[in-house]
Amino acid sequence: MKIKVYLSGEIHSDWRTEIASACRELELPVEFMSPVTDHPLSDSIGTDILGDEENGFWKDHKSAKINAIRTRSMIEGADVVVAKFGEEYRQWNAAFDVGYAAAKGKPIIVLHPAGLVHPLKEVDAAAMAVAETPAQVAEILKYVVMEKDGSD
Amino acid sequence: MKIKVYLSGEIHSDWRTEIASACRELELPVEFMSPVTDHPLSDSIGTDILGDEENGFWKDHKSAKINAIRTRSMIEGADVVVAKFGEEYRQWNAAFDVGYAAAKGKPIIVLHPAGLVHPLKEVDAAAMAVAETPAQVAEILKYVVMEKDGSD
Amino acid sequence: MKIKVYLSGEIHSDWRTEIASACRELELPVEFMSPVTDHPLSDSIGTDILGDEENGFWKDHKSAKINAIRTRSMIEGADVVVAKFGEEYRQWNAAFDVGYAAAKGKPIIVLHPAGLVHPLKEVDAAAMAVAETPAQVAEILKYVVMEKDGSD
Amino acid sequence: MKIKVYLSGEIHSDWRTEIASACRELELPVEFMSPVTDHPLSDSIGTDILGDEENGFWKDHKSAKINAIRTRSMIEGADVVVAKFGEEYRQWNAAFDVGYAAAKGKPIIVLHPAGLVHPLKEVDAAAMAVAETPAQVAEILKYVVMEKDGSD
Amino acid sequence: MKIKVYLSGEIHSDWRTEIASACRELELPVEFMSPVTDHPLSDSIGTDILGDEENGFWKDHKSAKINAIRTRSMIEGADVVVAKFGEEYRQWNAAFDVGYAAAKGKPIIVLHPAGLVHPLKEVDAAAMAVAETPAQVAEILKYVVMEKDGSD
Amino acid sequence: MKIKVYLSGEIHSDWRTEIASACRELELPVEFMSPVTDHPLSDSIGTDILGDEENGFWKDHKSAKINAIRTRSMIEGADVVVAKFGEEYRQWNAAFDVGYAAAKGKPIIVLHPAGLVHPLKEVDAAAMAVAETPAQVAEILKYVVMEKDGSD
Amino acid sequence: MKIKVYLSGEIHSDWRTEIASACRELELPVEFMSPVTDHPLSDSIGTDILGDEENGFWKDHKSAKINAIRTRSMIEGADVVVAKFGEEYRQWNAAFDVGYAAAKGKPIIVLHPAGLVHPLKEVDAAAMAVAETPAQVAEILKYVVMEKDGSD
Amino acid sequence: MKIKVYLSGEIHSDWRTEIASACRELELPVEFMSPVTDHPLSDSIGTDILGDEENGFWKDHKSAKINAIRTRSMIEGADVVVAKFGEEYRQWNAAFDVGYAAAKGKPIIVLHPAGLVHPLKEVDAAAMAVAETPAQVAEILKYVVMEKDGSD
Repeated sequence: MKIKVYLSGEIHSDWRTEIASACRELELPVEFMSPVTDHPLSDSIGTDILGDEENGFWKDHKSAKINAIRTRSMIEGADVVVAKFGEEYRQWNAAFDVGYAAAKGKPIIVLHPAGLVHPLKEVDAAAMAVAETPAQVAEILKYVVMEKDGSD
Repeated sequence: MKIKVYLSGEIHSDWRTEIASACRELELPVEFMSPVTDHPLSDSIGTDILGDEENGFWKDHKSAKINAIRTRSMIEGADVVVAKFGEEYRQWNAAFDVGYAAAKGKPIIVLHPAGLVHPLKEVDAAAMAVAETPAQVAEILKYVVMEKDGSD
Repeated sequence: MKIKVYLSGEIHSDWRTEIASACRELELPVEFMSPVTDHPLSDSIGTDILGDEENGFWKDHKSAKINAIRTRSMIEGADVVVAKFGEEYRQWNAAFDVGYAAAKGKPIIVLHPAGLVHPLKEVDAAAMAVAETPAQVAEILKYVVMEKDGSD
Repeated sequence: MKIKVYLSGEIHSDWRTEIASACRELELPVEFMSPVTDHPLSDSIGTDILGDEENGFWKDHKSAKINAIRTRSMIEGADVVVAKFGEEYRQWNAAFDVGYAAAKGKPIIVLHPAGLVHPLKEVDAAAMAVAETPAQVAEILKYVVMEKDGSD
Repeated sequence: MKIKVYLSGEIHSDWRTEIASACRELELPVEFMSPVTDHPLSDSIGTDILGDEENGFWKDHKSAKINAIRTRSMIEGADVVVAKFGEEYRQWNAAFDVGYAAAKGKPIIVLHPAGLVHPLKEVDAAAMAVAETPAQVAEILKYVVMEKDGSD
Repeated sequence: MKIKVYLSGEIHSDWRTEIASACRELELPVEFMSPVTDHPLSDSIGTDILGDEENGFWKDHKSAKINAIRTRSMIEGADVVVAKFGEEYRQWNAAFDVGYAAAKGKPIIVLHPAGLVHPLKEVDAAAMAVAETPAQVAEILKYVVMEKDGSD
Repeated sequence: MKIKVYLSGEIHSDWRTEIASACRELELPVEFMSPVTDHPLSDSIGTDILGDEENGFWKDHKSAKINAIRTRSMIEGADVVVAKFGEEYRQWNAAFDVGYAAAKGKPIIVLHPAGLVHPLKEVDAAAMAVAETPAQVAEILKYVVMEKDGSD
Repeated sequence: MKIKVYLSGEIHSDWRTEIASACRELELPVEFMSPVTDHPLSDSIGTDILGDEENGFWKDHKSAKINAIRTRSMIEGADVVVAKFGEEYRQWNAAFDVGYAAAKGKPIIVLHPAGLVHPLKEVDAAAMAVAETPAQVAEILKYVVMEKDGSD
């Protein structure tokens, strides 16, 4: 079974690459999707294309909505949603994505350091797995697409 | 990510061609769908196929429903819906399509001249982006399907 | 059967009152819902509550979205949606409402003068009835809620 | 129209009471629902009822899931979801609730101080209104349930 | 548990009255809904209200759609759908209603004489019970709403 | 746009072949699906595979349900449903299929001789087109998949 | 918040009464629904009403389907589903109910002795809480409907 | 028509292989999916990947949820669900899968020995076919995908 996986959340570390590399090495039939991770581009895309705004709220609003065209389509099309949370950022968008995916019945894997267990408890409660490392996520994906006798 | 885009609305200008050409030049993985834009054919298709009507209402009704077989299927299958409004026509069908797409949770891009901001405010309120030119729409689509690091 | 009816569209004539009065006289178990029909209030509600905007687009946007909280909830809760179109206004919001209601599977009654048959053909194609007068709409509602032997 | 409103998010200030009091004074037909805001009780309810856990993760997990029985039912039953974010806490659960509500098509009002505009842009992008004070939320609810001629 | 039951099909015999009387005698908490069973009224309601048609097809069409406003709402609101078929009429509308109800996941009871078993096999295959008499339908409804210990 | 079309109803005439041949000649991107039209096989498939039944009802039941595995999957997967009714048979299964497709929001084309207009009025009321000949159905499908400028 | 709770599973012990009594004593706004727990009646209801069957399979089939009219309606109408498993019976129907409720997005509470943890792991994985005693279930329900400040 | 079939249930006999071999010999366009049938791997996958647990409940819980990522995706993607029950195991997971599939409207085939008719009656009541041998299941699948004239 070929599956599509949406990688939501943290854009300041290389966790996406780690998961994708691990899966590519194993030649797993997994296709990854993700938001645009070029942060400045993602922040300014709204006014870049549709014209500048005086008010910071509307500047953010235009960018956030263009990003939403992309991310909502990707979550809708995903078989599994992975969301990564880190210590430094509030990443409300990642928690939003998990809530959105949960309401759509998508299986969710949450990835975060052990120190975030308490503040992420409601997010984790909606997950099928809570991992601490990208390698664990790759292991889970390997199992999900494995040939049925377990011999891979 | 390959996406399907439905182009609803105005059929008297070449906005569809402009968007499609721009995307083709960029070799974007975007497939476009649209209503039949041959206006006389679209207006008479019902009676052309199913037999004439004395009453103009039923003539229009038969054509509108055959067109709806096509357009509803296309909206259902679309990842993004673009709707174009112009100064000259009432284009209630385009507003209908936007309402239909909104209820189905499809991301919507509305395209119209600045002068229509007030009468289109409810339609714009349902959109992820409001553009004034076909080139802007093409820019948005480019972003939506872009490889994730923004280097395209 | 008690039903809820949402009355969408034209706010410059008293068609809503005519339908409601006719139903009240007949003591029909029908509850009516409608957008706020105080036009200046409806147009400025966004900035009235949430603060002024320089840009007309955002002023309209804020108002349109607050109105949408109301109208979407009402369409969701309606058993029947009635939409009125007139000669003078573009009423893209009414066409949007019809498209939205159609996608939600709500039975729709469209009300408009005979002169609008052609431009409204796609909207009419989604309707269960196309009426020309409020009295006809009231007659239809009477039938819909009538005791089953037709003796009312 | 009587509506049900779910109040998600921050539990360390009295914003819920402010909105509810304002609506009660206006005698609005609004029913409020909310998570259990007794923080220690909410945190320990899982192990209080179902037995202690050595591991903090499972302690949190049991509580979060019992809370989810309550909050998911309430979001499903709500006509409008209001979510409050503050400077001090990460409130991933509130962002999760907004994502969940968005996917269910619920109209959303977000309430937060101006300083959070940028990190909350994706959450705000899914909202019908972004308010800064509980009084503004009460004003919006007043409008949503107002009699249709605007004379209230 | 109070339930709503929609009674679809044959309008030339008194099967609806038999079921309703039996349930009323037993004081069951069952509310019945049905199409308008005054046949001439039902057939002409479209042109009665919306104006005459030369063409028989459109006359029937207008009536059928006004009836559909009523019947679709009733099926949507029903907990159980009962459909009666007889030897004499083709009753394609009853079979349509069963298909519609099946797709909506409504429990279906079909009522017909033994002689129709073969031509109704696809309809019966979608049913939770196939009865031959109105009394059997009343017995089933009694069981469905019975207090849980079976002592009624 | 490639579409899938399910052909429901009458199995005693060659209407399916006529539509398919016409579409094949035009090289239309249309894939057809249909029930098993070998009538004796279709009637006995249940007991052929799963063992005989004394009672005719259960014999029919077993066959009807195995056929339903096939037909429900096909309707779910179809972009357009065509249903053919003739003078001779009651074809409640075709009317069931139309009701099922209507509830799923599938565009429907009904095909029947003019003499059946009155008894099929509720079925026709759910259709996007009512044709009298297979050639008309092929014409409609040609229009539905036509390149957008109408030059085919 | 008043809630409806469906009690699925084991009918040979008085667990339903224990939960209901505990909730009644606390005057919680909880309404309970359950299958018919008179076992012989439940087993024979199909043939009691619809006529005897030679074949045990069809006897069971008729009864199971009439019970399903009741139980499916109750699960659809429930805010929370509780399922009880015991050591002695296979109770595939309770596991079926949990799967059905899970697919419908209903919050689930599973109740079973500690000895069944391993064979019920897939069922428990779909639950919001796994309890060992009816008293624990009552405690959870008390929390779910509690006034929001936790002072009950 | 190519179809996808999910094979749920018993993992201690070779029924999956029998069905798949029979279909392969007939060159049927059927793709099979199944849970991981390596029992020890399936039982320990949670702690293998995500770290050990003292408590048996959480060990099982972690494994069951990772398996659920796989099985829920497969059921969602399946056109037909087959579930096998045997005498020896309680297989609540298979009954859960059938309930889940039923709520999603998937056609279900149940496979079990005659001796289990009574305890499986509610599961069988949700099925389109109840078979006793893998060969019968293969025969049904052959019919479901057969070319329409029955000549295969």
